[in-house]
Amino acid sequence: MSTHSQNPGTLFLVPTPLDFGMDAAPATPLDQWLPGETLATARRLTYWISENAKSTRAFLKRVESVGNLAAPLQAQHIAALPRAAHKRGDHTPEAELEAQARALLIPALQGHDIGLVSEAGMPAIADPGSSIVRAAHALGMRVVPLTGPISLMLALAASGLNGQSFAFVGYVPQEASERARRLRELEALALKSGQTQILIETPYRNSALLQSLFQTLQPGTRLAVSAALSLTQQVSRSALISEWRRHRALPDSLPLQAPCVFLLGR
Amino acid sequence: MSTHSQNPGTLFLVPTPLDFGMDAAPATPLDQWLPGETLATARRLTYWISENAKSTRAFLKRVESVGNLAAPLQAQHIAALPRAAHKRGDHTPEAELEAQARALLIPALQGHDIGLVSEAGMPAIADPGSSIVRAAHALGMRVVPLTGPISLMLALAASGLNGQSFAFVGYVPQEASERARRLRELEALALKSGQTQILIETPYRNSALLQSLFQTLQPGTRLAVSAALSLTQQVSRSALISEWRRHRALPDSLPLQAPCVFLLGR
Repeated sequence: MSTHSQNPGTLFLVPTPLDFGMDAAPATPLDQWLPGETLATARRLTYWISENAKSTRAFLKRVESVGNLAAPLQAQHIAALPRAAHKRGDHTPEAELEAQARALLIPALQGHDIGLVSEAGMPAIADPGSSIVRAAHALGMRVVPLTGPISLMLALAASGLNGQSFAFVGYVPQEASERARRLRELEALALKSGQTQILIETPYRNSALLQSLFQTLQPGTRLAVSAALSLTQQVSRSALISEWRRHRALPDSLPLQAPCVFLLGR
Repeated sequence: MSTHSQNPGTLFLVPTPLDFGMDAAPATPLDQWLPGETLATARRLTYWISENAKSTRAFLKRVESVGNLAAPLQAQHIAALPRAAHKRGDHTPEAELEAQARALLIPALQGHDIGLVSEAGMPAIADPGSSIVRAAHALGMRVVPLTGPISLMLALAASGLNGQSFAFVGYVPQEASERARRLRELEALALKSGQTQILIETPYRNSALLQSLFQTLQPGTRLAVSAALSLTQQVSRSALISEWRRHRALPDSLPLQAPCVFLLGR
Protein backbone atom coordinates (compact mmCIF):
# COMPACT_ATOMS: atom_id res chain seq x y z
CA MET A 1 0.00 0.00 0.00
CA SER A 2 1.41 3.34 -1.02
CA THR A 3 0.47 5.10 2.22
CA HIS A 4 2.45 2.49 4.11
CA SER A 5 5.65 3.00 2.19
CA GLN A 6 5.44 6.71 3.00
CA ASN A 7 4.69 6.28 6.71
CA PRO A 8 7.03 3.84 8.39
CA GLY A 9 5.63 1.70 11.18
CA THR A 10 6.16 2.45 14.87
CA LEU A 11 8.73 0.73 17.09
CA PHE A 12 7.03 -0.27 20.37
CA LEU A 13 9.22 -1.14 23.35
CA VAL A 14 7.26 -3.95 24.97
CA PRO A 15 8.16 -4.91 28.56
CA THR A 16 7.81 -8.50 29.73
CA PRO A 17 7.24 -9.89 33.26
CA LEU A 18 10.20 -10.41 35.59
CA ASP A 19 9.48 -14.11 36.15
CA PHE A 20 10.79 -14.91 32.67
CA GLY A 21 13.11 -17.85 32.56
CA MET A 22 12.37 -18.88 36.15
CA ASP A 23 11.00 -22.37 35.77
CA ALA A 24 9.64 -22.60 39.28
CA ALA A 25 7.52 -19.47 38.96
CA PRO A 26 3.81 -20.03 38.57
CA ALA A 27 2.52 -18.49 35.35
CA THR A 28 0.65 -15.60 36.94
CA PRO A 29 -1.79 -14.01 34.47
CA LEU A 30 0.09 -11.29 32.58
CA ASP A 31 -2.49 -8.61 33.39
CA GLN A 32 -1.28 -8.67 36.99
CA TRP A 33 2.01 -7.07 35.87
CA LEU A 34 1.32 -5.48 32.50
CA PRO A 35 -1.26 -2.69 32.05
CA GLY A 36 -4.00 -2.63 29.41
CA GLU A 37 -2.17 -0.51 26.85
CA THR A 38 0.89 -2.78 26.89
CA LEU A 39 -1.23 -5.94 26.53
CA ALA A 40 -3.40 -4.44 23.77
CA THR A 41 -0.28 -3.49 21.81
CA ALA A 42 1.29 -6.92 22.30
CA ARG A 43 -1.90 -8.56 21.02
CA ARG A 44 -2.01 -6.32 17.95
CA LEU A 45 1.63 -6.59 16.80
CA THR A 46 2.77 -9.38 14.46
CA TYR A 47 6.42 -8.31 13.88
CA TRP A 48 8.93 -8.72 16.69
CA ILE A 49 12.62 -8.27 17.38
CA SER A 50 13.95 -10.15 20.41
CA GLU A 51 16.98 -11.77 22.01
CA ASN A 52 15.43 -15.20 21.77
CA ALA A 53 12.57 -16.29 19.51
CA LYS A 54 11.65 -19.20 21.78
CA SER A 55 10.99 -17.07 24.84
CA THR A 56 9.18 -14.48 22.73
CA ARG A 57 6.81 -17.24 21.57
CA ALA A 58 6.34 -18.25 25.23
CA PHE A 59 5.55 -14.61 26.07
CA LEU A 60 3.03 -14.38 23.20
CA LYS A 61 1.38 -17.56 24.40
CA ARG A 62 0.83 -15.87 27.77
CA VAL A 63 -0.45 -12.74 26.01
CA GLU A 64 -2.86 -14.95 24.08
CA SER A 65 -4.27 -16.37 27.31
CA VAL A 66 -5.37 -12.81 28.21
CA GLY A 67 -6.94 -12.13 24.78
CA ASN A 68 -6.76 -13.10 21.10
CA LEU A 69 -3.66 -12.23 19.07
CA ALA A 70 -4.05 -10.43 15.72
CA ALA A 71 -2.23 -13.36 14.08
CA PRO A 72 -1.82 -16.95 15.30
CA LEU A 73 1.50 -17.80 16.95
CA GLN A 74 2.83 -19.64 13.87
CA ALA A 75 2.19 -16.57 11.71
CA GLN A 76 4.11 -14.13 13.96
CA HIS A 77 7.39 -12.79 12.54
CA ILE A 78 10.13 -12.97 15.17
CA ALA A 79 13.60 -11.74 14.22
CA ALA A 80 16.63 -12.22 16.46
CA LEU A 81 18.76 -9.30 17.63
CA PRO A 82 22.22 -9.45 16.06
CA ARG A 83 24.59 -11.20 18.49
CA ALA A 84 26.78 -8.10 18.57
CA ALA A 85 23.87 -6.07 19.92
CA HIS A 86 23.82 -8.24 23.03
CA LYS A 87 26.45 -6.13 24.63
CA ARG A 88 28.02 -2.80 24.02
CA GLY A 89 31.73 -2.31 24.09
CA ASP A 90 32.42 -5.36 21.96
CA HIS A 91 34.46 -5.23 18.76
CA THR A 92 31.70 -4.91 16.21
CA PRO A 93 32.12 -1.54 14.52
CA GLU A 94 29.21 0.78 15.26
CA ALA A 95 28.47 1.14 11.51
CA GLU A 96 28.11 -2.62 11.10
CA LEU A 97 25.84 -2.88 14.15
CA GLU A 98 23.71 -0.09 12.73
CA ALA A 99 23.46 -1.81 9.34
CA GLN A 100 22.31 -5.02 11.03
CA ALA A 101 19.76 -3.09 13.09
CA ARG A 102 18.40 -1.31 10.01
CA ALA A 103 18.01 -4.62 8.20
CA LEU A 104 15.77 -5.87 11.02
CA LEU A 105 13.59 -2.79 10.65
CA ILE A 106 12.80 -3.36 6.94
CA PRO A 107 9.21 -4.48 7.72
CA ALA A 108 8.67 -1.04 9.30
CA LEU A 109 9.54 0.61 5.98
CA GLN A 110 6.70 -1.46 4.51
CA GLY A 111 4.37 0.06 7.10
CA HIS A 112 4.41 -2.65 9.77
CA ASP A 113 4.61 -1.78 13.46
CA ILE A 114 7.34 -3.71 15.27
CA GLY A 115 7.69 -4.74 18.92
CA LEU A 116 11.08 -4.91 20.62
CA VAL A 117 11.11 -7.29 23.63
CA SER A 118 13.75 -8.50 26.06
CA GLU A 119 13.92 -11.66 28.17
CA ALA A 120 12.56 -9.92 31.27
CA GLY A 121 11.61 -6.34 32.01
CA MET A 122 12.13 -3.35 29.75
CA PRO A 123 14.05 -3.76 26.48
CA ALA A 124 17.22 -1.64 26.18
CA ILE A 125 17.48 -1.10 29.95
CA ALA A 126 20.15 -3.32 31.54
CA ASP A 127 19.49 -5.37 28.42
CA PRO A 128 20.34 -5.26 24.70
CA GLY A 129 18.27 -3.46 22.11
CA SER A 130 19.52 0.14 22.04
CA SER A 131 21.05 -0.27 18.55
CA ILE A 132 17.56 -1.10 17.24
CA VAL A 133 16.13 2.02 18.88
CA ARG A 134 18.90 4.24 17.42
CA ALA A 135 18.29 2.76 13.95
CA ALA A 136 14.52 3.35 14.30
CA HIS A 137 15.13 7.04 15.05
CA ALA A 138 17.53 7.29 12.11
CA LEU A 139 14.80 5.86 9.83
CA GLY A 140 12.31 8.44 11.10
CA MET A 141 10.18 5.84 12.86
CA ARG A 142 8.02 6.75 15.83
CA VAL A 143 9.36 5.10 19.00
CA VAL A 144 6.85 4.37 21.78
CA PRO A 145 7.93 2.90 25.14
CA LEU A 146 5.25 0.95 27.04
CA THR A 147 4.76 0.48 30.78
CA GLY A 148 5.83 -2.67 32.62
CA PRO A 149 7.99 -3.82 35.52
CA ILE A 150 11.59 -2.53 35.66
CA SER A 151 13.49 -4.30 38.41
CA LEU A 152 16.12 -1.57 38.87
CA MET A 153 13.46 1.03 39.66
CA LEU A 154 11.29 -1.23 41.82
CA ALA A 155 14.44 -1.90 43.85
CA LEU A 156 15.38 1.79 44.00
CA ALA A 157 11.94 2.83 45.27
CA ALA A 158 12.01 0.04 47.87
CA SER A 159 15.54 0.91 49.06
CA GLY A 160 14.84 4.18 50.84
CA LEU A 161 18.05 5.45 49.22
CA ASN A 162 18.29 8.74 47.32
CA GLY A 163 15.99 8.54 44.29
CA GLN A 164 16.72 12.12 43.19
CA SER A 165 20.24 11.15 42.09
CA PHE A 166 21.26 7.63 41.17
CA ALA A 167 23.39 5.59 38.78
CA PHE A 168 23.10 2.08 37.40
CA VAL A 169 26.63 0.69 37.04
CA GLY A 170 25.87 -2.86 35.90
CA TYR A 171 28.19 -5.64 37.02
CA VAL A 172 31.26 -5.38 39.26
CA PRO A 173 34.46 -7.39 38.64
CA GLN A 174 34.44 -11.06 39.71
CA GLU A 175 38.01 -11.21 41.00
CA ALA A 176 37.93 -10.57 44.78
CA SER A 177 40.47 -7.76 45.12
CA GLU A 178 39.33 -6.00 41.96
CA ARG A 179 35.74 -6.28 43.14
CA ALA A 180 36.60 -4.84 46.56
CA ARG A 181 38.41 -1.93 44.88
CA ARG A 182 35.42 -1.22 42.63
CA LEU A 183 32.97 -1.41 45.55
CA ARG A 184 35.07 1.05 47.56
CA GLU A 185 35.18 3.36 44.55
CA LEU A 186 31.37 3.24 44.19
CA GLU A 187 30.93 3.76 47.94
CA ALA A 188 33.22 6.81 47.93
CA LEU A 189 31.24 8.28 45.02
CA ALA A 190 27.91 7.58 46.75
CA LEU A 191 28.98 9.04 50.10
CA LYS A 192 30.57 12.13 48.56
CA SER A 193 27.92 13.03 45.98
CA GLY A 194 24.82 11.42 47.48
CA GLN A 195 24.33 9.49 44.22
CA THR A 196 22.83 6.04 44.92
CA GLN A 197 24.79 3.29 43.14
CA ILE A 198 22.80 0.36 41.70
CA LEU A 199 24.43 -2.94 40.71
CA ILE A 200 23.41 -6.40 39.55
CA GLU A 201 25.03 -9.82 39.43
CA THR A 202 24.28 -13.16 37.81
CA PRO A 203 22.14 -15.08 40.35
CA TYR A 204 24.68 -17.80 41.16
CA ARG A 205 27.15 -15.10 42.28
CA ASN A 206 24.63 -13.05 44.33
CA SER A 207 25.70 -14.62 47.61
CA ALA A 208 29.40 -13.95 46.98
CA LEU A 209 28.67 -10.34 46.05
CA LEU A 210 26.64 -9.84 49.23
CA GLN A 211 29.50 -11.18 51.38
CA SER A 212 31.89 -8.89 49.56
CA LEU A 213 29.61 -5.90 50.21
CA PHE A 214 29.46 -6.74 53.95
CA GLN A 215 33.24 -7.03 54.16
CA THR A 216 34.14 -4.04 52.05
CA LEU A 217 31.73 -1.23 52.88
CA GLN A 218 31.87 1.13 55.86
CA PRO A 219 29.54 0.57 58.87
CA GLY A 220 27.59 3.79 58.19
CA THR A 221 26.87 3.05 54.51
CA ARG A 222 23.33 1.97 53.65
CA LEU A 223 22.97 -1.25 51.65
CA ALA A 224 19.67 -2.36 50.12
CA VAL A 225 18.89 -5.63 48.35
CA SER A 226 15.75 -6.57 46.42
CA ALA A 227 15.29 -10.19 45.39
CA ALA A 228 12.67 -11.91 43.20
CA LEU A 229 10.95 -8.60 42.48
CA SER A 230 7.26 -8.73 41.56
CA LEU A 231 7.12 -12.44 42.45
CA THR A 232 5.30 -13.87 45.48
CA GLN A 233 8.57 -14.57 47.30
CA GLN A 234 9.90 -11.04 46.73
CA VAL A 235 11.93 -9.44 49.52
CA SER A 236 13.39 -5.94 49.80
CA ARG A 237 15.70 -5.11 52.71
CA SER A 238 17.53 -1.90 53.51
CA ALA A 239 19.84 -1.26 56.46
CA LEU A 240 23.18 0.24 57.39
CA ILE A 241 26.15 -2.11 56.95
CA SER A 242 26.56 -2.13 60.75
CA GLU A 243 22.99 -3.43 61.07
CA TRP A 244 23.46 -6.07 58.34
CA ARG A 245 26.54 -7.29 60.24
CA ARG A 246 24.70 -7.36 63.56
CA HIS A 247 21.66 -9.28 62.27
CA ARG A 248 23.19 -12.35 60.73
CA ALA A 249 19.71 -13.65 59.94
CA LEU A 250 19.00 -10.83 57.47
CA PRO A 251 20.83 -12.33 54.47
CA ASP A 252 19.27 -15.74 55.13
CA SER A 253 15.82 -14.22 54.58
CA LEU A 254 16.74 -13.28 51.00
CA PRO A 255 16.01 -15.65 48.08
CA LEU A 256 19.47 -15.03 46.62
CA GLN A 257 19.05 -17.70 43.94
CA ALA A 258 16.52 -15.35 42.26
CA PRO A 259 17.53 -12.22 40.31
CA CYS A 260 18.65 -9.50 42.75
CA VAL A 261 19.37 -5.80 42.63
CA PHE A 262 21.96 -4.31 45.04
CA LEU A 263 22.00 -0.63 46.01
CA LEU A 264 24.34 1.39 48.17
CA GLY A 265 24.45 4.98 49.34
CA ARG A 266 23.89 7.18 52.30
CA MET B 1 -6.14 -7.32 67.59
CA SER B 2 -3.11 -8.81 69.23
CA THR B 3 -1.82 -10.52 66.10
CA HIS B 4 -1.78 -7.15 64.38
CA SER B 5 0.36 -5.46 66.97
CA GLN B 6 2.94 -8.23 66.51
CA ASN B 7 2.97 -8.10 62.70
CA PRO B 8 3.29 -4.60 61.36
CA GLY B 9 1.51 -3.76 58.11
CA THR B 10 3.23 -3.59 54.74
CA LEU B 11 4.33 -0.39 53.01
CA PHE B 12 3.23 -0.53 49.36
CA LEU B 13 4.82 1.88 46.89
CA VAL B 14 1.91 2.71 44.60
CA PRO B 15 2.68 4.35 41.24
CA THR B 16 0.24 6.82 39.69
CA PRO B 17 -0.28 7.75 36.02
CA LEU B 18 1.93 10.38 34.39
CA ASP B 19 -0.98 12.61 33.33
CA PHE B 20 -1.45 13.77 36.93
CA GLY B 21 -1.91 17.47 37.26
CA MET B 22 -2.27 18.03 33.51
CA ASP B 23 -5.70 19.58 33.25
CA ALA B 24 -6.01 19.13 29.51
CA ALA B 25 -5.40 15.38 29.64
CA PRO B 26 -8.44 13.20 29.11
CA ALA B 27 -9.01 10.91 32.08
CA THR B 28 -7.91 7.68 30.41
CA PRO B 29 -9.07 4.62 32.39
CA LEU B 30 -6.34 3.80 34.91
CA ASP B 31 -6.10 0.18 33.79
CA GLN B 32 -4.47 1.37 30.56
CA TRP B 33 -1.36 2.37 32.56
CA LEU B 34 -1.53 0.44 35.82
CA PRO B 35 -1.50 -3.38 35.93
CA GLY B 36 -3.96 -5.55 37.85
CA GLU B 37 -1.82 -6.06 40.94
CA THR B 38 -1.26 -2.32 41.40
CA LEU B 39 -4.96 -1.53 40.96
CA ALA B 40 -6.08 -4.35 43.28
CA THR B 41 -3.71 -3.08 45.99
CA ALA B 42 -4.86 0.52 45.53
CA ARG B 43 -8.49 -0.61 45.90
CA ARG B 44 -7.72 -2.58 49.06
CA LEU B 45 -5.66 0.00 50.98
CA THR B 46 -7.32 2.58 53.25
CA TYR B 47 -4.21 4.26 54.73
CA TRP B 48 -2.09 6.54 52.54
CA ILE B 49 0.92 8.81 52.76
CA SER B 50 1.23 11.36 49.97
CA GLU B 51 2.59 14.74 48.95
CA ASN B 52 -0.88 16.14 48.51
CA ALA B 53 -4.13 14.76 49.95
CA LYS B 54 -6.25 16.43 47.27
CA SER B 55 -4.54 14.74 44.35
CA THR B 56 -4.50 11.42 46.23
CA ARG B 57 -8.30 11.68 46.55
CA ALA B 58 -8.48 12.43 42.80
CA PHE B 59 -6.34 9.34 42.16
CA LEU B 60 -8.57 7.17 44.38
CA LYS B 61 -11.62 8.46 42.53
CA ARG B 62 -10.07 7.17 39.31
CA VAL B 63 -9.21 3.86 41.01
CA GLU B 64 -12.84 3.63 42.12
CA SER B 65 -14.04 3.98 38.52
CA VAL B 66 -12.16 0.74 37.75
CA GLY B 67 -13.56 -1.16 40.78
CA ASN B 68 -14.94 -0.64 44.29
CA LEU B 69 -12.67 0.66 47.05
CA ALA B 70 -12.47 -1.22 50.37
CA ALA B 71 -13.60 2.01 52.10
CA PRO B 72 -15.47 4.98 50.67
CA LEU B 73 -13.40 8.04 49.76
CA GLN B 74 -14.45 9.99 52.87
CA ALA B 75 -13.30 7.13 55.11
CA GLN B 76 -9.79 6.88 53.58
CA HIS B 77 -6.92 8.03 55.83
CA ILE B 78 -4.54 10.28 53.90
CA ALA B 79 -1.51 11.70 55.74
CA ALA B 80 0.76 14.33 54.20
CA LEU B 81 4.50 13.80 53.84
CA PRO B 82 6.43 16.15 56.14
CA ARG B 83 7.42 19.27 54.16
CA ALA B 84 11.06 18.54 54.90
CA ALA B 85 10.76 15.20 53.14
CA HIS B 86 9.99 17.00 49.89
CA LYS B 87 13.62 17.37 49.17
CA ARG B 88 16.83 15.97 50.50
CA GLY B 89 19.70 18.21 51.32
CA ASP B 90 17.51 20.68 53.19
CA HIS B 91 18.22 21.77 56.74
CA THR B 92 16.03 19.35 58.66
CA PRO B 93 18.34 17.10 60.67
CA GLU B 94 18.10 13.50 59.47
CA ALA B 95 16.97 12.38 62.97
CA GLU B 96 14.03 14.80 62.96
CA LEU B 97 12.98 13.72 59.46
CA GLU B 98 13.12 10.10 60.59
CA ALA B 99 10.99 10.84 63.67
CA GLN B 100 8.36 12.52 61.45
CA ALA B 101 8.40 9.58 59.06
CA ARG B 102 7.98 7.07 61.89
CA ALA B 103 5.03 9.04 63.24
CA LEU B 104 3.27 8.66 59.89
CA LEU B 105 3.80 4.90 60.03
CA ILE B 106 2.01 4.44 63.38
CA PRO B 107 -1.05 2.85 61.70
CA ALA B 108 1.29 0.14 60.38
CA LEU B 109 2.25 -0.76 63.94
CA GLN B 110 -1.47 -1.36 64.51
CA GLY B 111 -1.44 -3.82 61.62
CA HIS B 112 -2.65 -1.58 58.79
CA ASP B 113 -1.07 -1.73 55.35
CA ILE B 114 -0.10 1.70 54.04
CA GLY B 115 0.28 3.02 50.49
CA LEU B 116 2.89 5.64 49.61
CA VAL B 117 1.98 7.64 46.47
CA SER B 118 3.52 10.55 44.60
CA GLU B 119 1.95 13.15 42.31
CA ALA B 120 2.91 11.23 39.16
CA GLY B 121 4.89 8.06 38.55
CA MET B 122 6.78 6.05 41.15
CA PRO B 123 7.07 7.37 44.71
CA ALA B 124 10.64 7.98 45.93
CA ILE B 125 12.06 8.13 42.39
CA ALA B 126 12.74 11.71 41.23
CA ASP B 127 10.16 12.46 43.92
CA PRO B 128 9.97 12.61 47.72
CA GLY B 129 9.19 9.63 49.94
CA SER B 130 12.51 7.90 50.63
CA SER B 131 12.47 8.93 54.31
CA ILE B 132 9.20 7.01 54.72
CA VAL B 133 10.73 3.93 53.08
CA ARG B 134 13.82 4.09 55.34
CA ALA B 135 11.60 4.41 58.42
CA ALA B 136 9.49 1.44 57.29
CA HIS B 137 12.61 -0.74 57.03
CA ALA B 138 13.76 0.46 60.47
CA LEU B 139 10.39 -0.59 61.92
CA GLY B 140 10.72 -4.05 60.37
CA MET B 141 7.87 -3.48 57.93
CA ARG B 142 7.69 -5.34 54.63
CA VAL B 143 8.20 -2.93 51.71
CA VAL B 144 6.60 -3.87 48.37
CA PRO B 145 7.11 -1.77 45.22
CA LEU B 146 4.36 -2.01 42.60
CA THR B 147 4.56 -1.66 38.81
CA GLY B 148 3.56 1.49 36.99
CA PRO B 149 4.91 4.10 34.56
CA ILE B 150 8.31 5.64 35.37
CA SER B 151 9.04 8.49 32.98
CA LEU B 152 12.84 8.36 33.39
CA MET B 153 12.95 4.72 32.25
CA LEU B 154 10.40 5.06 29.45
CA ALA B 155 12.58 7.90 28.14
CA LEU B 156 15.79 5.90 28.55
CA ALA B 157 14.43 2.91 26.63
CA ALA B 158 13.15 5.21 23.87
CA SER B 159 16.45 7.12 23.61
CA GLY B 160 18.63 4.44 22.03
CA LEU B 161 21.34 5.59 24.46
CA ASN B 162 23.33 3.20 26.64
CA GLY B 163 20.91 1.49 29.05
CA GLN B 164 23.63 -0.68 30.59
CA SER B 165 25.14 2.32 32.39
CA PHE B 166 23.21 5.48 33.18
CA ALA B 167 22.74 8.19 35.80
CA PHE B 168 19.82 10.39 36.74
CA VAL B 169 21.21 13.77 37.76
CA GLY B 170 17.99 15.71 38.37
CA TYR B 171 17.93 19.42 37.56
CA VAL B 172 20.75 21.54 36.11
CA PRO B 173 21.42 25.14 37.26
CA GLN B 174 19.15 27.87 35.88
CA GLU B 175 21.79 30.55 35.43
CA ALA B 176 23.04 30.39 31.81
CA SER B 177 26.81 30.14 32.33
CA GLU B 178 26.50 27.78 35.29
CA ARG B 179 24.11 25.63 33.29
CA ALA B 180 26.48 25.50 30.31
CA ARG B 181 29.33 24.50 32.62
CA ARG B 182 27.23 21.73 34.18
CA LEU B 183 26.08 20.43 30.77
CA ARG B 184 29.68 20.31 29.53
CA GLU B 185 30.67 18.44 32.70
CA LEU B 186 27.87 15.88 32.16
CA GLU B 187 28.78 15.55 28.47
CA ALA B 188 32.46 14.92 29.29
CA LEU B 189 31.43 12.23 31.79
CA ALA B 190 29.04 10.60 29.29
CA LEU B 191 31.55 10.59 26.43
CA LYS B 192 34.42 9.34 28.59
CA SER B 193 32.62 6.62 30.55
CA GLY B 194 29.72 5.79 28.24
CA GLN B 195 27.30 6.54 31.11
CA THR B 196 24.06 8.05 29.77
CA GLN B 197 23.12 11.21 31.69
CA ILE B 198 19.42 11.80 32.36
CA LEU B 199 18.04 15.22 33.38
CA ILE B 200 14.70 16.90 33.95
CA GLU B 201 13.43 20.48 34.11
CA THR B 202 10.25 22.22 35.20
CA PRO B 203 8.04 22.37 32.08
CA TYR B 204 8.12 26.16 31.62
CA ARG B 205 11.92 26.01 31.35
CA ASN B 206 12.06 23.00 28.97
CA SER B 207 12.47 25.17 25.91
CA ALA B 208 15.35 27.17 27.41
CA LEU B 209 17.11 23.97 28.48
CA LEU B 210 16.78 22.51 24.99
CA GLN B 211 18.32 25.65 23.43
CA SER B 212 21.12 25.47 25.96
CA LEU B 213 21.76 21.80 25.08
CA PHE B 214 21.93 22.66 21.34
CA GLN B 215 24.37 25.49 21.96
CA THR B 216 26.58 23.75 24.50
CA LEU B 217 27.02 20.14 23.41
CA GLN B 218 29.42 18.82 20.77
CA PRO B 219 28.12 17.92 17.27
CA GLY B 220 28.82 14.19 17.79
CA THR B 221 26.98 13.88 21.12
CA ARG B 222 23.61 12.14 21.03
CA LEU B 223 20.69 14.03 22.60
CA ALA B 224 17.30 12.41 23.23
CA VAL B 225 14.11 14.06 24.46
CA SER B 226 10.86 12.41 25.52
CA ALA B 227 7.81 14.61 26.08
CA ALA B 228 4.33 13.86 27.45
CA LEU B 229 5.27 10.23 28.06
CA SER B 230 2.42 7.68 28.09
CA LEU B 231 -0.01 10.34 26.83
CA THR B 232 -1.56 10.42 23.34
CA GLN B 233 0.62 13.36 22.29
CA GLN B 234 3.84 11.67 23.47
CA VAL B 235 6.96 12.15 21.38
CA SER B 236 10.44 10.65 21.77
CA ARG B 237 13.27 11.91 19.56
CA SER B 238 16.92 10.93 19.50
CA ALA B 239 19.62 12.33 17.22
CA LEU B 240 23.18 13.64 17.22
CA ILE B 241 23.50 17.33 18.11
CA SER B 242 24.64 17.99 14.52
CA GLU B 243 21.35 16.51 13.29
CA TRP B 244 19.25 18.47 15.79
CA ARG B 245 20.97 21.64 14.55
CA ARG B 246 20.42 20.76 10.89
CA HIS B 247 16.69 19.94 11.27
CA ARG B 248 15.31 23.08 12.83
CA ALA B 249 11.82 21.55 12.69
CA LEU B 250 12.70 18.78 15.16
CA PRO B 251 12.26 20.84 18.35
CA ASP B 252 8.98 22.30 17.05
CA SER B 253 7.53 18.79 16.92
CA LEU B 254 7.99 18.37 20.69
CA PRO B 255 5.18 19.30 23.14
CA LEU B 256 7.67 21.11 25.41
CA GLN B 257 4.93 22.49 27.66
CA ALA B 258 4.42 18.89 28.92
CA PRO B 259 6.82 17.15 31.33
CA CYS B 260 10.01 16.18 29.46
CA VAL B 261 13.03 13.99 30.09
CA PHE B 262 16.38 14.92 28.48
CA LEU B 263 19.16 12.39 27.90
CA LEU B 264 22.66 12.73 26.53
CA GLY B 265 25.46 10.35 25.76
CA ARG B 266 27.27 8.66 22.94
